[in-house]
Amino acid sequence: MLEDKSQELTPISKLGEFGLIKHLTENFPIVQNSTKLSIGDDAAIIDAEGQKVVISTDMLAEGVHFNLGYVPLKHLGYKSVVVNLSDIAAMNATPTQILVSVAVSNRFPVEALEEIYDGIALACNRYKADLIGGDTTSSNAGLVISVTAIGLEKEENIVKRNGAKPNDLLVVTGDLGGAYLGLQILEREHSVYLANPNMQPEMEGYDYILERQLKPEARTDIKKKLEELDILPTSMIDVSDGLASEILHLSDQSKVGFNVYEEKLPMDETMIHTADELNLNPAMAALNGGEDYELLFTISSSDFDKIKNHPDFTIIGHATETNAGNFLIARGSNQLIPLTAQGWDAFLNKE
Amino acid sequence: MLEDKSQELTPISKLGEFGLIKHLTENFPIVQNSTKLSIGDDAAIIDAEGQKVVISTDMLAEGVHFNLGYVPLKHLGYKSVVVNLSDIAAMNATPTQILVSVAVSNRFPVEALEEIYDGIALACNRYKADLIGGDTTSSNAGLVISVTAIGLEKEENIVKRNGAKPNDLLVVTGDLGGAYLGLQILEREHSVYLANPNMQPEMEGYDYILERQLKPEARTDIKKKLEELDILPTSMIDVSDGLASEILHLSDQSKVGFNVYEEKLPMDETMIHTADELNLNPAMAALNGGEDYELLFTISSSDFDKIKNHPDFTIIGHATETNAGNFLIARGSNQLIPLTAQGWDAFLNKE
Repeated sequence: MLEDKSQELTPISKLGEFGLIKHLTENFPIVQNSTKLSIGDDAAIIDAEGQKVVISTDMLAEGVHFNLGYVPLKHLGYKSVVVNLSDIAAMNATPTQILVSVAVSNRFPVEALEEIYDGIALACNRYKADLIGGDTTSSNAGLVISVTAIGLEKEENIVKRNGAKPNDLLVVTGDLGGAYLGLQILEREHSVYLANPNMQPEMEGYDYILERQLKPEARTDIKKKLEELDILPTSMIDVSDGLASEILHLSDQSKVGFNVYEEKLPMDETMIHTADELNLNPAMAALNGGEDYELLFTISSSDFDKIKNHPDFTIIGHATETNAGNFLIARGSNQLIPLTAQGWDAFLNKE
Repeated sequence: MLEDKSQELTPISKLGEFGLIKHLTENFPIVQNSTKLSIGDDAAIIDAEGQKVVISTDMLAEGVHFNLGYVPLKHLGYKSVVVNLSDIAAMNATPTQILVSVAVSNRFPVEALEEIYDGIALACNRYKADLIGGDTTSSNAGLVISVTAIGLEKEENIVKRNGAKPNDLLVVTGDLGGAYLGLQILEREHSVYLANPNMQPEMEGYDYILERQLKPEARTDIKKKLEELDILPTSMIDVSDGLASEILHLSDQSKVGFNVYEEKLPMDETMIHTADELNLNPAMAALNGGEDYELLFTISSSDFDKIKNHPDFTIIGHATETNAGNFLIARGSNQLIPLTAQGWDAFLNKE
């Protein structure tokens, strides 16, 4: 996709490293008051304005986190920012700045990088995050994107993974498993295309799950919604590797167990139908699919009345005593199935 | 180097992503008071304690920034941190935290990553910087390291690139061109080795320039030395791409010209001898070599008496009027040679 097949495209070497960074980043506006100096010096300067600095970084590698055979570069740029903003949201903080580094083969023309940066710009605009730094380098093979995201937040608002207490309610935003099923459809249609490039891909009816995979959103809206409900979570994490995996993280760091009810798992209709079509168990997709970028958190059971029936939140279980273990309570039975981390793992799911 | 040739080495897949990060980072101590939360949550937390946050990121790619044929992995880990700390030092700030992401092929065993992290740990210890975050992923080809460095500093101490005024003195720390000549020797001996693996490399006598290339240091000591001299630079940058290139950056952002005297360029004896041996012009190596990670800065001419004869600093020229241009004054003549950026460029110097 967008490799250098046409003579009209611009080779990266024509601009050189400095020219390239300047060219790619010159139209990014600065909207945060806390950004005191942006791209162009040895470092950027942020004024934390008395708040704590929350910072996280993630790296996406071609062939591992994305396949350029079916992921448009603009979507890739957007998603690489979103997955980092999601980590800031998972601290109950608001993202304010990002730094983006891209290693790219010379087989890519400048126009391909422009596509990636268009997606980055879209995410920056959507989430009001300033692009304040980064690096662009060639690589011998493959595209690698590294994003560092920063948020500023008052200490008393920040939520970590270690505060869940026994009897706390376990809550998740949105629905689960969609991104995973979207990936299955993309991979299926890509295989069909590779076998016969004249075949039209059958994407109709899958819009929701394709968007969940290709253009996920970070739940930066949740912080405000929880504030309006007068709820401060006791622990929080984002669902990047799969619900089961994230529950085990909360369990590990909060020193509690969790019981999760299969019948409570929030699932979208398109996801369920697609799972049926592909002969997959939708509940397993919701539990282990990953990449949904919803927020998973615990709240005091005394907050139950504030949150019940809210369209953005689903109570899926509760915390139990330390070392009680983590279990899925199967639908229509009282069977306890031990939760295991079958989540997506960059070192296992391939080759 | 350290690829998986032995059955005794540990494949990365054995630990998985979470296990790997934990394994690699568990022995990193936290020494900065400003580090409030480190690795293990969705994000780290920094308390800026009323100071400004200075932040920079750099990416190093195999085959572009380093050749594993002659760069030991431990040195690579050390250097990848140092080049980022150098950017913080170039703001006249003190580095306090780093985040490190590594994309690595499955051809590397866990022991290779341990070597890289040993080097990172050495740099963290040497510079009192806390490792507070990062990511580890597989990649389809090549090793890519992305480091984000953070420093905290009072606003009035921070030095940018844009403050140089006409008649300011241009000063550089240490000596220049050594890292470039070290690279020439490493590449020469690597070629000899490839041609005949039984040949012993001839590295004797080149220690200084090899260390400049393989184990550079960030001049975080300069801030204190300048404070002791009661000097605050008017502009500053670090010498990563070559002196000429950096001078052009200061010129561009400060809107002044510069005259630089060839006879003033600080050069080490080993560097000069090696340049002679390789039939290279030592002054050109000093001007365009890059990767020395010294600091280049301007000071008011009224500070001349404070800095003259100081062993760490060399006055190499001065700023001229806006748009006067940037020139090298050739040794033993008054000839003005226009400075051009022939510095190292990740997109030009290869393929």
